[in-house]
Amino acid sequence: MNKKLLITIGAFVLCLFAASCSPKTGIVDGITVVTGKGQAKYVFLFVGDGMSAAQITAAQYYLSAKDNTKNNQPTYLNFTKFPVVGLSNTDDYGSIITDSASAATAFASGRKTISAMINMDPVDGTHFKTIAEYAKDAGMKVGVVSTVTLTHATPASFYGKVASRGNAEGNENEPVGLAQQLVESGFDYYGGGWITGSSASNDKYLDDARELGYTIARTPQEFNELNNSTGKVIALAERAQDSGAMHYEIDRLPSDLSIVDFTRKGIELLENPNGFFFMVESGKIDWASHANDAGAVIHDLLAFDNAIALALEFYKKYPKQTLILVTGDHETGGMSLGWADTGHSMQFDKITKQTRSHVAFNEEIVWPYKEQVSNTAQRRIEDLYSDILESFGIDLRPESLNISITQRNQIEVAFRRSMGQAVTEPLEGWSVFCGYYEPLTVKLTHVLNQSAGIGWSSYSHTALPVLSYAIGVHQEIFGGYYDNTEIFYKLASAMNMKVK
Amino acid sequence: MNKKLLITIGAFVLCLFAASCSPKTGIVDGITVVTGKGQAKYVFLFVGDGMSAAQITAAQYYLSAKDNTKNNQPTYLNFTKFPVVGLSNTDDYGSIITDSASAATAFASGRKTISAMINMDPVDGTHFKTIAEYAKDAGMKVGVVSTVTLTHATPASFYGKVASRGNAEGNENEPVGLAQQLVESGFDYYGGGWITGSSASNDKYLDDARELGYTIARTPQEFNELNNSTGKVIALAERAQDSGAMHYEIDRLPSDLSIVDFTRKGIELLENPNGFFFMVESGKIDWASHANDAGAVIHDLLAFDNAIALALEFYKKYPKQTLILVTGDHETGGMSLGWADTGHSMQFDKITKQTRSHVAFNEEIVWPYKEQVSNTAQRRIEDLYSDILESFGIDLRPESLNISITQRNQIEVAFRRSMGQAVTEPLEGWSVFCGYYEPLTVKLTHVLNQSAGIGWSSYSHTALPVLSYAIGVHQEIFGGYYDNTEIFYKLASAMNMKVK
Repeated sequence: MNKKLLITIGAFVLCLFAASCSPKTGIVDGITVVTGKGQAKYVFLFVGDGMSAAQITAAQYYLSAKDNTKNNQPTYLNFTKFPVVGLSNTDDYGSIITDSASAATAFASGRKTISAMINMDPVDGTHFKTIAEYAKDAGMKVGVVSTVTLTHATPASFYGKVASRGNAEGNENEPVGLAQQLVESGFDYYGGGWITGSSASNDKYLDDARELGYTIARTPQEFNELNNSTGKVIALAERAQDSGAMHYEIDRLPSDLSIVDFTRKGIELLENPNGFFFMVESGKIDWASHANDAGAVIHDLLAFDNAIALALEFYKKYPKQTLILVTGDHETGGMSLGWADTGHSMQFDKITKQTRSHVAFNEEIVWPYKEQVSNTAQRRIEDLYSDILESFGIDLRPESLNISITQRNQIEVAFRRSMGQAVTEPLEGWSVFCGYYEPLTVKLTHVLNQSAGIGWSSYSHTALPVLSYAIGVHQEIFGGYYDNTEIFYKLASAMNMKVK
Repeated sequence: MNKKLLITIGAFVLCLFAASCSPKTGIVDGITVVTGKGQAKYVFLFVGDGMSAAQITAAQYYLSAKDNTKNNQPTYLNFTKFPVVGLSNTDDYGSIITDSASAATAFASGRKTISAMINMDPVDGTHFKTIAEYAKDAGMKVGVVSTVTLTHATPASFYGKVASRGNAEGNENEPVGLAQQLVESGFDYYGGGWITGSSASNDKYLDDARELGYTIARTPQEFNELNNSTGKVIALAERAQDSGAMHYEIDRLPSDLSIVDFTRKGIELLENPNGFFFMVESGKIDWASHANDAGAVIHDLLAFDNAIALALEFYKKYPKQTLILVTGDHETGGMSLGWADTGHSMQFDKITKQTRSHVAFNEEIVWPYKEQVSNTAQRRIEDLYSDILESFGIDLRPESLNISITQRNQIEVAFRRSMGQAVTEPLEGWSVFCGYYEPLTVKLTHVLNQSAGIGWSSYSHTALPVLSYAIGVHQEIFGGYYDNTEIFYKLASAMNMKVK
């Protein structure tokens, strides 16, 4: 071999690596094409619904407050330690602020659509093929887990195509709704919340699934019996909260299956020589953010991170074949880590006192109280003092009040509004004061959050960009700033798939 | 040459490139050490004070609203097109929420300190050496530009060491204040706002600077005469607004020098064979965010981006020797891109109607009106209708009201509060309603911002992480998630400097 040849080969090696060293991940460069470095065979996509920088950062400082050893520094989560960070826009075809259907469509199939529409072109109705369907066609196994119903927008965006996300059971225009599409998808594993919010229709679709060869697990016992040779599986939470969803982590009983259980089982069931694509959604980070309930957000986000820890263990076994991507679909609530009254001070220890989500507080305290004291005029906030203290750490007793008088007045007004008693509308208006939520409960979480230094601006999604965190084979292509549709192309590229 | 040698060399080339391909930029890996790829000789550090994802994203959608061609998509800024994005925590030694002094100390000298302290150890008082001082010692030229006073926390953190950022002119404990430290720094170029907020003391320090060999430019004419052979320069805005700062971009007259002018001149003056370190701060993104004035934020951020465009032009001339890093020191205001009343709708076109910052509105409208109508009881909001419409696009005339009745009521309350008339405190309390700002003005920007879909939660800094954007030599080490102190080490590493 002569010197010239050596230089030629050297230069080739150089070019090859230079190309993969400097992936074109910036907005200006469009879609990334990966060359060379092998295939992502085991692909995890973790979606924190409604999760962006504020939710993640709050969870980290909450952990530090809990163990009280960190002198203001965050406790990093499993996924925030990943080496690659990306940033994405979430605007959809019709609006700067996306909805979960159009957001998940963007990263599941690489196309923009309008609010509420799933995997359809808003102009001509063309159906989009999803990354999960491409994976299935390529012989990989596919799993979908969600903490909310499996026909909810995010999980549905991996198998479904409907003009409106609300079409779970079929309607005149689209007789085949999301539930039937799920059952007929042929995907290998579904886990988490129920298929639909109604127990009866959930049972019906499970019967259909059984006929199509699925093994169904409805109890922890049945769940534990599932294994890698079971075949196709649908495994659901036994108890549901909040229209067919799994319980908030903060409300979950030890006997309830968790997002960690559904993720662990998924890994066990999906592992096979052809690889897998496994999407896991934490859907109630979003719901809790809509309700401005930081405690419920944080507990669900930490459980989500524990599920990611299992993927990380798997990655350590197969580092050259595994890719883990964690992202959000949009931010929800306009969560902020600073509040006018607390200025530069944050006290996350206040949030450690919360023991119930807003939903559990409504279901266990507020609504039963209203039934119990049916005479509106006889309802008194004093009756709820101990429940409020136990649930949110807020002490309303005059002798031991631990919030400001102003905050106490707000809670009083919210109580009267919740109880149907006469009350003057606050200057900001009811829509800002409490939105469509139970006034007392949302004002309690507001006040608790504010005392920790956490603010909220909305009960809806916001236009803030979301963060992505990647580790594993082709991790580098997920760095930089790009549109959320690019996530689909980046995933496909990492999996060496040709997609349209 | 034999085959074995070829493989050895090939493997070496491989390792070399693999090492620089996969820079250790994650939190878990600590400080990045760069090997191989040459030195960043021309280094730009652009600091958007108070700038994080919300401020940047708002500026992008504002541009799209302005040119009205983008169907909800953002118009990317010069710096958001950079290929590398990083994310940093900003907590300081004493608090989860940093102040600008401790934040700038973190990235200027790699160490945590407490709020208000600049480049000093909070425990033992040790002074920290800054990246600018290391650059100066290495024979590079150093430039510092800020839109606020040059003794303000961010610019001061590149040359100064004081126990309290307020010590501009010396006190009993520290006789040598920041202004004297600036004059004695020996740095090559200072530009932007005045040295101090007082005209007389500013003149005094300029005299001292002249004696130490600085050429002083106080007028645009003097400024235009400066060139690469002038020597050391201090060039200040002729007019100041808001305690010695440059005018908000939205209020700036064409005859006023802008951040773009000061940056262009800096590049011209600093270019030399030994390279330079050039820090440019947009300081009033923060001040406008404190005041919850999105219009002023956006205009200053866009001017900042235009200044960055000049660095980008320079980079294109010397791509292998230039590094541009754009970062924020913290988020301010808890700015959010979603508001309870507007839900999923955002209307950035509303912000295009704003013609004055909150400061200009106070100075030109509110305070003169109070002087003009000295009898408190005779002040009527109707007198300000046309000024409010012209300044903020808010039409309060009953026949053409373009905000909600609720918002109108809030402005009425704020007017009465501003005018010293009797008014009932709103349920949320004055501290949340208007903070320490002029009630009428802050409520006008609140209402304007809300109608666009923008919310605010605080008048202070927040704990949200900040974004960094990098392009140029060693850009890749600025990707990932890391503490703000790492920026110092990354810069030093890119500049091939040994630092303690």
